[in-house]
Amino acid sequence: MNPRFLAPAIDPGAAPAPSLDAGSAPSHLQLRRVAIDTYRENVAYLHRDCDLYRVEGFQALAKVEVSVNGQRILATLNVTSDPRIVQRHELGLSQDAFEQLGVPAGRAVAVRQAEPAPSISALHRKINGERLGREDFQAIIRDIAEHRYSKIELSAFVVATNRGELDREEVFFLTEAMIASGRRVDWQERLVVDKHCIGGIPGNRTSMLVVPIVAAHGLVCPKTSSRAITSPAGTADTMEVLADVELPFERLGDIVRAHRACLAWGGTAHLSPADDILISVERPLSLDSPGQMVASILSKKVAAGSNHLVLDIPIGPTAKVRSMPEAQRLRRLFEYVAHRLGLSLDVVITDGRQPVGNGVGPVLEARDVMMVLENHPLAPQDLRQKSLRLAGRLLECDPDIRGGDGYAIARDILDSGRALEKMRAIIEAQGARPFDHQRPKVGALSFEVRAPSSGVVTQIDNLCIARLAQLAGAPKVQGAGVDLARKLGEPVTQGDLLYRVHAAYRSDLEFARQASEQHCGYTVGRPEDVPHVFVEF
Amino acid sequence: MNPRFLAPAIDPGAAPAPSLDAGSAPSHLQLRRVAIDTYRENVAYLHRDCDLYRVEGFQALAKVEVSVNGQRILATLNVTSDPRIVQRHELGLSQDAFEQLGVPAGRAVAVRQAEPAPSISALHRKINGERLGREDFQAIIRDIAEHRYSKIELSAFVVATNRGELDREEVFFLTEAMIASGRRVDWQERLVVDKHCIGGIPGNRTSMLVVPIVAAHGLVCPKTSSRAITSPAGTADTMEVLADVELPFERLGDIVRAHRACLAWGGTAHLSPADDILISVERPLSLDSPGQMVASILSKKVAAGSNHLVLDIPIGPTAKVRSMPEAQRLRRLFEYVAHRLGLSLDVVITDGRQPVGNGVGPVLEARDVMMVLENHPLAPQDLRQKSLRLAGRLLECDPDIRGGDGYAIARDILDSGRALEKMRAIIEAQGARPFDHQRPKVGALSFEVRAPSSGVVTQIDNLCIARLAQLAGAPKVQGAGVDLARKLGEPVTQGDLLYRVHAAYRSDLEFARQASEQHCGYTVGRPEDVPHVFVEF
Repeated sequence: MNPRFLAPAIDPGAAPAPSLDAGSAPSHLQLRRVAIDTYRENVAYLHRDCDLYRVEGFQALAKVEVSVNGQRILATLNVTSDPRIVQRHELGLSQDAFEQLGVPAGRAVAVRQAEPAPSISALHRKINGERLGREDFQAIIRDIAEHRYSKIELSAFVVATNRGELDREEVFFLTEAMIASGRRVDWQERLVVDKHCIGGIPGNRTSMLVVPIVAAHGLVCPKTSSRAITSPAGTADTMEVLADVELPFERLGDIVRAHRACLAWGGTAHLSPADDILISVERPLSLDSPGQMVASILSKKVAAGSNHLVLDIPIGPTAKVRSMPEAQRLRRLFEYVAHRLGLSLDVVITDGRQPVGNGVGPVLEARDVMMVLENHPLAPQDLRQKSLRLAGRLLECDPDIRGGDGYAIARDILDSGRALEKMRAIIEAQGARPFDHQRPKVGALSFEVRAPSSGVVTQIDNLCIARLAQLAGAPKVQGAGVDLARKLGEPVTQGDLLYRVHAAYRSDLEFARQASEQHCGYTVGRPEDVPHVFVEF
Repeated sequence: MNPRFLAPAIDPGAAPAPSLDAGSAPSHLQLRRVAIDTYRENVAYLHRDCDLYRVEGFQALAKVEVSVNGQRILATLNVTSDPRIVQRHELGLSQDAFEQLGVPAGRAVAVRQAEPAPSISALHRKINGERLGREDFQAIIRDIAEHRYSKIELSAFVVATNRGELDREEVFFLTEAMIASGRRVDWQERLVVDKHCIGGIPGNRTSMLVVPIVAAHGLVCPKTSSRAITSPAGTADTMEVLADVELPFERLGDIVRAHRACLAWGGTAHLSPADDILISVERPLSLDSPGQMVASILSKKVAAGSNHLVLDIPIGPTAKVRSMPEAQRLRRLFEYVAHRLGLSLDVVITDGRQPVGNGVGPVLEARDVMMVLENHPLAPQDLRQKSLRLAGRLLECDPDIRGGDGYAIARDILDSGRALEKMRAIIEAQGARPFDHQRPKVGALSFEVRAPSSGVVTQIDNLCIARLAQLAGAPKVQGAGVDLARKLGEPVTQGDLLYRVHAAYRSDLEFARQASEQHCGYTVGRPEDVPHVFVEF
């Protein structure tokens, strides 16, 4: 429906025009890298008085296709009159776009107006509330993975498939399409296991314990994680305190074959790439609907080659899921889609009333994890217990382990030091951080928050503690975060330390201090005010 | 929920940090204009090694607030490492953003992370399907007008308020909020009239006839129009063939006081500015739901000071509205909202089966309009009749004119040459285009499409004809377009001319020719195959 705007600048009175290919009007410009980070949106820059194209009918939101030697990418067009950005004979590409195209600057590239994404009519049907079929989702997700959707169209898709807009078979179609959009790994193993938590609980770094435990037992567990999306630390951010996590995918394969496991960032693996693009829109909108969550998590796991997954759904007053009926609805949706995908899934509903462990932020969480692995007497027991229970459930997918025996086996592996040994092997294999002054430390600046009255801790607000850690600089400032001194149900006397906030920069500390003065995140009251949740663990 | 990313780059080990204002950390950078057209999205450019801010935790979709002397704008942050775009002591702004801030380059500006738009929680409630109240719409539209919404959030709002998602009172709240977002003109007149068509019918340039007729009668008709959104020409594009249309709002006021009318582009008037921002997202999504259409049209009219509106809803197989029940639902929604706004509204449902007039494209449409005003014997009669009927309905809002007499009065004004005289006065007042070789002409290149068989014309596809005119270059190439030689129901013999396509550029002509060979837009058949519509005129 958009008017064409990009056509060769041929004056009718001038020399005869070159003949045109059927349906296209390519010509050549010189490629230039424009050092602007436009964040997952490819942008092409053209000079307003471009030698080859007239851009007067310019529609800035339209897409162009840039091609060279059969390689092609799609980009949004921005027009500039500054020759320092691009000259009249050049076509500029933003950083990511330049790297996607993958040819050196100076090469001759062809530009043409991109055809509208073929799936736009399916998007319109979804916006109008219709149910979509398998082919529709395949077409939409293929277009998204090929960067054919603008941010506006991505946002429209995310909102049109939000809460209640997808039935469970549509969620399966979406998941399946997302798997097909990228690489699908085959480990050539009968059992490939993984664990995942739907998120929302600060400090909850059980993966860094479960993975070495089950790998020490011999199960294959190729764990690739995201960085923090809305939280103060993701598993990849915390693991990065100890080891390199940005590894070429081929090296991950070698590490997994040698050690049965890895703990790396998933960004290099091209697993469910459409999911990464959708997340770039879901995050600023703070949208995280059940259907999108299920498709995102299960597509990544199946693409990574897992066939057995333990999934942790925490519930609590400030968790993502706040009631048991909601958790059960979500469990059924996960189970339905996993079954259709042939993925064996074990859902565990857990206690999400407060952060897990003491530290919140990459360095503090890495400290907690290492204390548990080292069987340190002051290691946080809640993190230890939850990790052992999740590892136990995962071990029970081994047909040689009897139902109910997993926990004890996991505990033996941890207590014996075999988990620590496995973790050290993984750290070495990925590339250990040097143990010197360059190793990230807890932020040097800090302030303390103390109990305003005496009683017991009746609430610790997950959202508030996460926000304080973020204000203090986490996850980008690795040593920033919150270190909890009291947990739910513990008695406190007025003036007792509740938690300490660490930062590396004065301004960050002040932002966190101001926020904590408004909402400290703790409530002190009577023992009977501690909320109960009825969960497995 | 987003982590902070922009904080003064103060090393804890360095000299004591400057004290901080409560809740903010402003510092100063030198303003620079970056000559990039980012199309209604404000973009701020910061160097990756900026002197004052560390951008390492950079979230490219977050917004910053740029301020100087109490002026402030919001912008999306892009990070660059190219000092030719911005240097380490500079902050760059894209063209529109620079102009909005309105201070010279080189001035010291402060930058801070923008607070999230206060209405985002209301947006989330709408996404989740809740009904919003008056204050919610006020808050959302205020944020949109202040550029606090990103493209992603705008798209989310447009989709969440799409077809069926707004009840009629919500449409009223939205319209009212859009009026409040900009200027509201008071002409100090008892009657201020306007006419509007919901669009979708190529060539339908009745405004350029209705306005001079009713102004010649003495009614005040300050017509401000848009440029083409998805069509080959808007009223402003066509009027621009004859006169200047981009006038400062103050001059429009003078012209209306002197001549009772104007025919200008509305972009300078700051009427319902939130609507312009929403359209920038609705257009690429091709979304045009009833609620959004009503709010867009009525907010512009009320903001422009009109109190009496004749609204044209064409129906036909290839019009925006395709059935009478759909037209009646839309009429009722327009009437409900107009009543709540105190606007007198007269809805006319008209024949939308084919283009109105012969020409489609700015120059060709201007030619048709002038032929009708000049009472030329070959003037298109359908354009004349429809304009007289609409003008007659508008004239009848004058209490001195009896119901039913409007048409004859309009015809007298047109036949006597008073409408032509009034049009000439308006053209002179706005600034006539010189009558010399620089005046836009019909494109010099052309091709013809002829009847494939004999019979009568049974269909002319509005969408197809509009697309051909766009491919030929309209509206940006003023002389490009389609000139129809046959209308619905007319007999044709095989080989008779159906229409001629005009273009100024060879490549445009070829694109249009290829498209016409696929779909020529005409169907020739038996007289009984001509579809009927039962409309007033």
